[in-house]
Formats: sequence, structure tokens, C-alpha cells
Amino acid sequence: MHWTQDIGAAETRIRGYVQRTPVLDTTAFGLEHPIALKLEHMQHTGSFKARGAFNTLLGGSVPDAGIVAASGGNHGAAVAFAAQKLGFRARVYVPEMAGPSKIALIRDSGADLEVVPGAYANALEKAKAYEAETGAMQVHAYDAPATVIGQGTCFAEWDAQGLEADTILIAVGGGGLIAGAMAWYGGSKKIIAVEPQTSRALNAAIDAGGPVDVDVSGVAANALGARRIGSICYDLASSGAVNLSSLTVSDAAIVEAQRRLWQDRRILVEPAGATALAALTSGAYVPEPGEHVAVLLCGGNVAPNPVDGADG
Amino acid sequence: MHWTQDIGAAETRIRGYVQRTPVLDTTAFGLEHPIALKLEHMQHTGSFKARGAFNTLLGGSVPDAGIVAASGGNHGAAVAFAAQKLGFRARVYVPEMAGPSKIALIRDSGADLEVVPGAYANALEKAKAYEAETGAMQVHAYDAPATVIGQGTCFAEWDAQGLEADTILIAVGGGGLIAGAMAWYGGSKKIIAVEPQTSRALNAAIDAGGPVDVDVSGVAANALGARRIGSICYDLASSGAVNLSSLTVSDAAIVEAQRRLWQDRRILVEPAGATALAALTSGAYVPEPGEHVAVLLCGGNVAPNPVDGADG
Repeated sequence: MHWTQDIGAAETRIRGYVQRTPVLDTTAFGLEHPIALKLEHMQHTGSFKARGAFNTLLGGSVPDAGIVAASGGNHGAAVAFAAQKLGFRARVYVPEMAGPSKIALIRDSGADLEVVPGAYANALEKAKAYEAETGAMQVHAYDAPATVIGQGTCFAEWDAQGLEADTILIAVGGGGLIAGAMAWYGGSKKIIAVEPQTSRALNAAIDAGGPVDVDVSGVAANALGARRIGSICYDLASSGAVNLSSLTVSDAAIVEAQRRLWQDRRILVEPAGATALAALTSGAYVPEPGEHVAVLLCGGNVAPNPVDGADG
Repeated sequence: MHWTQDIGAAETRIRGYVQRTPVLDTTAFGLEHPIALKLEHMQHTGSFKARGAFNTLLGGSVPDAGIVAASGGNHGAAVAFAAQKLGFRARVYVPEMAGPSKIALIRDSGADLEVVPGAYANALEKAKAYEAETGAMQVHAYDAPATVIGQGTCFAEWDAQGLEADTILIAVGGGGLIAGAMAWYGGSKKIIAVEPQTSRALNAAIDAGGPVDVDVSGVAANALGARRIGSICYDLASSGAVNLSSLTVSDAAIVEAQRRLWQDRRILVEPAGATALAALTSGAYVPEPGEHVAVLLCGGNVAPNPVDGADG
């Protein structure tokens, strides 16, 4: 793979379709040191997933049967949005735990939606059966090169916006986003993989020396609750070519980081979107003196819709 | 007055105390044309008011009696925050309509708070009496040069961030922020003053040929509900040296703009913060073909606190 070339090409391919998301430097959230934030939750459909979705749909040959995806919610919303923009049929499977906000996003895009019992893995089974039956193109949420390359454009964009950081903290579910970061940066930056204690597919894989199944639960489960880390992510993480550390945070730490983002900067994100910051605010990751840290806010699809009844 | 020099000096003075707020270009909210946004609701205490507060407190000589301010809520929160950071005593008067979110912000900063019946004008009477009685320094919410100059730094900062716009839309309450814009830009940009139909102090003054009292009500009243436009604002607006237009929008248009900001960009602002955008989304202001428009999002203090129970 020529990751950086592929990510550069993807950035050109999807530029007209995705939002260039804002960045800011701030000293806040009870931290002594400044941090760089990228507000990727302001991406179309409220998460970075739109990047991988557009890269896949624009880069491949979509059959008449259209596309199919399984998702905890955010990937499905992004695929449905991209399909609508590009004029493709889309079928999306999500688990009940996707929640009302993400389910509404998918439904409103005109996708053919099926809500299935269980977790993401159950939705994926259904999507694979649909693919086999119809010949639709499967758009994997994290374990496909086009997805990983699309997510990697987030970091190419951040660099172009002048990011100066030694270390980037990124929340991990199935590993598509952090794989994009590893693909883009190689060993040039320290990358901190942050997972909920109750949804630690990468952390468990590193402990076990290979991908293993984990139980998933907790406040960020519908976004980060992959049962097993993607093989692309794991292969990059264990390649020796990257500077990766893995750690976990409690649900209480995630909710506290979510609260601080609102309190100090009026940024409202879903629990998954606050998970990377939680590593700093909880003290799970303590930067060295002078170490410049950056945090990606990956998703903002809270439920219920917060604008209803939001008075001044 | 040497407005631009004063604003430049203020920017240097307050730089270490205020947040440089992010900007983005986006095509969204049902509009055909791109717009530039400045996310000033991410400022300390959730509105641009922190700029004027810090400029006043850093630029003046604060007596032992401390400072006093009257406010619909956002100015009081900013003054209380600045006073706390700089070690001054602060007394703040707000009307009941300030609402729980803004009142909590002021209380949490350690200011001595009094909630008074009625609207902003009633709080201002109390603040003036306290000033006369104690010798405390009055920090006016909009009609003082140091306040206007401080708010003007928002536009100096935006220009330094590369703003390219022909036209800027700004919500107006008492007129401190838009006075800062007129002071900074003079006639070099078209400035659109946007007010709620039910809180139109500037619009009414322009109609009447001078400041007049108006009744105030509606969804944005605690932030934009000045009974009479500030004289600094009115004098600038009527000076002939600026390119200003005034228009009004309905409460329904404001709430719709607030809804679209969340739906398309996951930006949650209070009604006042969506008022300038409402002029575009409602069609009250229609740019010419090729006209580049910019919108300042001025406040994000919604009530109740939206992070409580914000699941993914």
C-alpha cells in the first residue's frame, strides 16, 4: 500500500463533498497545557464517517443493486447521506442501540433502513447476507482500505490547517479512523488510541497479540462498540512502523469530558466524541512538559435532539 | 476617536485572556451560496461579551469597591468571569428573564449576584444606584467606548484569520457588537444589522431618526432585548461613514435557523446566536450573485444545559 499517496488522492476526490472542519487551540477543560482541537463532529452527518463513505462511493464502481452497510449509527448515516448525494440506492442495517438520533438521520436521507436486535455485529451479519443475495456493494464501517483511506483525509486536512502537535489522541471503535491516522503519519507523531473500558477491542487485541472478541457496553457503545478490532487497524498498530499507545477510560470520565466541552467551549458532542479528550481530563494520559497534544472530536450525534426547547 | 488603532491596541491587551474562536466556510442550512461563520459562541462564558469585559477591566483603573454591571445575562457572565480571573470584586444585576443557564454562569464565577424583576432596563437602574452608592466601576453592556472597542477585536481577529467577505450579518441587541464592527470596518464592508421583530431598538431608531424606547419580548429577549439602542451604536450607524442596513426577523425564523445550525453542522447556539443567520435562511436578506457573506454566531448559552442526558 502507498498510504500517503492514496490519502492525498482521496482528499482531492472527496474535497467537493465533505466539510473542511474547523480547528482551534485552547487552554480549557481544567488542563494546564493548551491543546489543539479538530471539530470533526461538524462534518456532514455529524462524524468523520462521511469521509470514508464518499471515498468509497466515488472511488469504486457501484452496481445497480446499490450499496449496503452495517453500522452502529454514524457510519450508516454517512453512507446514506453520500448515497443520496451521489444518486445511489442504499440499504443500511443498524442495531437498536443506534438510538433515535442516528436512526432518524439515516431514515431522513432516504436510505432503506432495517433496525435489527443486538449490537453492531448483528447488523453486519445482515448486511453480508444482503450483499450475497443482491450483489450490492458492501461499504464496511472500518475494515476496508477505501474507508481507512477516506478517514485518513481528516489528518491530511488537519496538517494543511497548520497542526503543530507531537501527539494526537483519537477515540477507537473498529479502528477505521485511527488506522487512517497511522496510515497518514506513520511513525512521525505519537498516536494515543483511547477506548472505553467497556469497549476495548484494540486494547484487548494488543494484550492478546491479535484481534479477539470483546464484550461491548457503556455510554459510547453505539459509536465505539466494535466486538473485534479491524484487521487493517491491527496490522498497522502492530507493524512496528508507528508510534502508538493504547489506553482506556471509564464511562464516568467520558461523561465528564463531554460536560467540560460544553461548559468551557459550548461544544456539544456525543460520548464517543468526548472519549479522546477524556484521556487528558481524567489523567489517563499526562503529556510531558512541552509536549504539544491534539484531540480529534469525532462525533456529535447526541440523542435526544438538543435544539428542541433550547431557550436562551 | 481613533477606532481602528484603539481596537488594535485592545486586541493586544486582551489576547492572553480571550479565546481565539474558530472560523469555517460552509455551504449548508438550505442556502445555495457558501457562507463564512465565526464561532464566537465558543468564547469564554459563551459569548463575545468576554472581549469587552476584559478590555474594560484591563484598560481602566478599578476602585476598591470593584465593578458593577447590569446584564440580560451574557454580559454579566462575562464581567463576572473577567473579574474572577483578574481578582476584582464584582456585583451583577440581571433580570429574571436571564434564565437558569446564564444565572448559573454568573453565580459560579463568584460574583455577587442580584436577580431583579422585569427586563434589562430594570437591572441597569439597580446597577446605577449601586455605582452611585459605592463608587464601583460601572461596566456598561454596550454603550461605553471600552466595551465597543473590546467587541471590535472580534472583527480584527476574523480579518487576521483570512476573512474574505463583502457583507457581514450581525445580531443586534443594545448595539455593542455591531458598533465594534462599524468602528473596525467603517465603510469597507456592508454590515447587516439583524434584530428580532419583537426587539428592534436599532431598527426603530433608524425609522424615528434617533434612539427611541421599544417594547422587548420574544425568544431572544434576554440577549437582544435592549429597550433603547446605545448612543455609540446609533451615532456610528447614522454617521454616513458606514455601509449599514437594518432588518428584522420573526421568532419562528430564529428558531428555524437555530435548528438548521444543529442539523447541518452540530452547532448549538441560543436564539440570539442564530438571529443573524435567520436573515439568510428566512430570505429576509438575499445576497447578490457572487456576494460573499459572513455570519457571526454571537452566543451559545442555551437553557437547560444540553449536556445532561446527551446520549449517543
